[in-house]
Amino acid sequence: MTRPWTFPIALDPRTGALVSQISRAIAGDIRRGRLQPGASLPGSRTLAATLGVHRNTVLAAYRELEAEGWIETGSRSTRVAADLPSAPVRGVASRRGTAFPLEPFAPPPNSPLPPKGTISLGGGFPDGRLVPTDLLARALRRALKAKVAPLDYGDPQGDLRFRTALGVMLGEMRGLAVEPSEIVVTAGSQQALDLIGRALIRPGDVVAVEDPGYPRAWATLRAAGAKLAPLPVDGEGLVVEALEILLDQSPIRALYTTPHHQYPTMATLSAPRRMRLLDLARKHRFAVIEDDYDFEFHYEGRPVLPLASSDTAGCVIYVGTLSKVLAPGLRLGFLAAPSAFTETITAHRSVTDYMGNQAFERAVAELMEDGLLQRHVRKMRRVYEERRAVLVEEVGKRLGTRLAFDLPTGGMSLWAKAEGLSLPRWAERCRKEEVLFHWGAAFDFHRRPIPFLRLGFAALNPTELREAVRRMAAALP
Amino acid sequence: MTRPWTFPIALDPRTGALVSQISRAIAGDIRRGRLQPGASLPGSRTLAATLGVHRNTVLAAYRELEAEGWIETGSRSTRVAADLPSAPVRGVASRRGTAFPLEPFAPPPNSPLPPKGTISLGGGFPDGRLVPTDLLARALRRALKAKVAPLDYGDPQGDLRFRTALGVMLGEMRGLAVEPSEIVVTAGSQQALDLIGRALIRPGDVVAVEDPGYPRAWATLRAAGAKLAPLPVDGEGLVVEALEILLDQSPIRALYTTPHHQYPTMATLSAPRRMRLLDLARKHRFAVIEDDYDFEFHYEGRPVLPLASSDTAGCVIYVGTLSKVLAPGLRLGFLAAPSAFTETITAHRSVTDYMGNQAFERAVAELMEDGLLQRHVRKMRRVYEERRAVLVEEVGKRLGTRLAFDLPTGGMSLWAKAEGLSLPRWAERCRKEEVLFHWGAAFDFHRRPIPFLRLGFAALNPTELREAVRRMAAALP
Repeated sequence: MTRPWTFPIALDPRTGALVSQISRAIAGDIRRGRLQPGASLPGSRTLAATLGVHRNTVLAAYRELEAEGWIETGSRSTRVAADLPSAPVRGVASRRGTAFPLEPFAPPPNSPLPPKGTISLGGGFPDGRLVPTDLLARALRRALKAKVAPLDYGDPQGDLRFRTALGVMLGEMRGLAVEPSEIVVTAGSQQALDLIGRALIRPGDVVAVEDPGYPRAWATLRAAGAKLAPLPVDGEGLVVEALEILLDQSPIRALYTTPHHQYPTMATLSAPRRMRLLDLARKHRFAVIEDDYDFEFHYEGRPVLPLASSDTAGCVIYVGTLSKVLAPGLRLGFLAAPSAFTETITAHRSVTDYMGNQAFERAVAELMEDGLLQRHVRKMRRVYEERRAVLVEEVGKRLGTRLAFDLPTGGMSLWAKAEGLSLPRWAERCRKEEVLFHWGAAFDFHRRPIPFLRLGFAALNPTELREAVRRMAAALP
Repeated sequence: MTRPWTFPIALDPRTGALVSQISRAIAGDIRRGRLQPGASLPGSRTLAATLGVHRNTVLAAYRELEAEGWIETGSRSTRVAADLPSAPVRGVASRRGTAFPLEPFAPPPNSPLPPKGTISLGGGFPDGRLVPTDLLARALRRALKAKVAPLDYGDPQGDLRFRTALGVMLGEMRGLAVEPSEIVVTAGSQQALDLIGRALIRPGDVVAVEDPGYPRAWATLRAAGAKLAPLPVDGEGLVVEALEILLDQSPIRALYTTPHHQYPTMATLSAPRRMRLLDLARKHRFAVIEDDYDFEFHYEGRPVLPLASSDTAGCVIYVGTLSKVLAPGLRLGFLAAPSAFTETITAHRSVTDYMGNQAFERAVAELMEDGLLQRHVRKMRRVYEERRAVLVEEVGKRLGTRLAFDLPTGGMSLWAKAEGLSLPRWAERCRKEEVLFHWGAAFDFHRRPIPFLRLGFAALNPTELREAVRRMAAALP
């Protein structure tokens, strides 16, 4: 039992004299389950002071409750009886349902945590064990102790110091020239999508998406009222010709795309398609929502800059996140766009959750200013590149005849095609072998069981990766 | 200049041979403002490695750029020229507007930060200087270093340990019997309202609100599509008879109310009105959104429990926050309701910002389990009670003939009626005397300049409060 807050009870004048009011209130709380059998009651002096009554009044009420069997009075303490005279009826807690009508809402289910012992190749997350929590805790401490109160209300657009650091990062690393005023900090890239949906989409607006693609983004866009139009993807990323055909049929409000490493196939949008896509956006006046979730993790060939870096017309809303470079639990994402748009997004944010966590924003800004985040990213890139090599080697050795894949030039997972075997059956057998991966239906717009699977390598060390592939091989049907 | 991330540039095959491609890309970045005059360029070896080209190719490109006046090559470093051959044209950053159409959105403006030297009685916030940041920083450090990774993806409903601690607090302190499954953690009470709006309200649904009331809640409910119906307030809180008249005219989806300390008048909803309100909600099947933003700060008389504690039918959605007991910058709020509702809200949250900041949730859970938050609340209650006394005394002494008010039994501000003087004029003169308060029009549904003002006392120490009232008196018209 923690130290009690106080012990307020609600007296109801309709239950009679003061003694009765007190005893009925306590009996009611016991029956409703607020006071559990064995729980301590406050001493009579304390309760008398809380209620502003004479101590004798409380003692009389306690005697009444004891006579009825609700409480037991010992030499030192008064407790709720272990055996109650009637079964408790629960209050609020007893009601699963509401008295008012409620509309169901079912987004895609969250992946449940894998059972203990199961190795998960799902997700494509960073390795939580390698997050520099010491650096972060120290920076947070400094942010909390700073003179500029980090726990007062602040700027719904995001802390200026953090936006400035993000602007420097986007310029130096990703070829984007953006001012802090052109950035809005969000609670992960998910909130960026949610706010974009609120600002852009009216019920029935068509938004084009990639198929296979990212179901969580689909759910957020659908919640904003969008009618989604799936477009195919090939080895060069989004098939822009299919977008042209769609545009011949109906105007679209926006396109949601992952050009750098297409989610989930990891294909990089080719240069001619980039040019064509931006031309179409300018001509047809739709917004390009560019989700660049893992820019920094690119291992081969020349870096390919974001679409936003070639956008001179103001078509692109660029969405990024620190979930991959640092950790998803920070809930730090952002969007960059022309300032008319960031002002609108900030207005929307001010009526949703008002603002983000300034202390975390300032702590991470400090890590960026000191070059510590950059160093962490460089280190992680080496670690993940090594893990990619381990996974590719193991899959080649043990599953080479069953899985066909291109070496991913970047990102945190491998996209492979299953050859001549039933993926649903294999996945089920893998579950028994305690290894887990996401496959086909999880990424397909129509939830068809397409013969592809995705193996995330970033969160597992080489030993775990080797064991995971060994189990997958053992589970082959 | 911070340590650079890397130096990616986008080569465009249409600009000719490799040397040209490199020089045109860098010249383009200088013209777009991504590279500023004086900025360092990477050494030729480094850039050659980044681009996967021979060093001589980079050297040739640098010679070309130097000949054109874009860069200056010193003995040790290569820099962007201080005087550029042509004015930079900005890229993304130059575009205020978007190529796609954009709908304006104007919520109530945020209160700007008061100018330095101005004392603000606005807000009714806690005193940020008294937040136990040391305790919080230590608890955060422990949360970040814990084995249960606090920075991985977690539960969109909120961390179980924090929900458990909230359940204990609500039971011991506020007379509510709620299970952790009946609580959803939110980013402040504002996000609780936003999620309730998403789950409950369809465009055109009527939501009754109190007038005067809380404009930020109105804006959030309006953004969800609600048609707001203002109801009057008197010394016993919401005038429930007016709600009955409204219900005769049209069904309502919900009522938003602040029964404990009505915002902004501080009136406490009387017992008969509470009973009547819950009866109406049950009969007419509307939701009661009970915003209990400062329950713990009550100084006189018996504690009055929340409406939710008498709700056996499942009518009440109870909204709370730690913004007042700890600090608004934590962004920790919650709602408690029957589990069918918390499940729906959790589903909505999973497509908005997915989840909150687990590290903060666990850190504050630890403070609650150890009784440290409770101790802080008890301390703050004494501090704020003293500040209330100082403000009341000073106002009585210096402004007694101009302001009429009831002693607030709780809360963090004083609601007073201005007698025989123009509030707009006084407020303007106060601005020049460097003292600020919120008044009439800021709380009125129709933004009429009603003759009331609100003086927040919690965030100012006695010296500041005395000086504030002195300035207000000096500014009397």
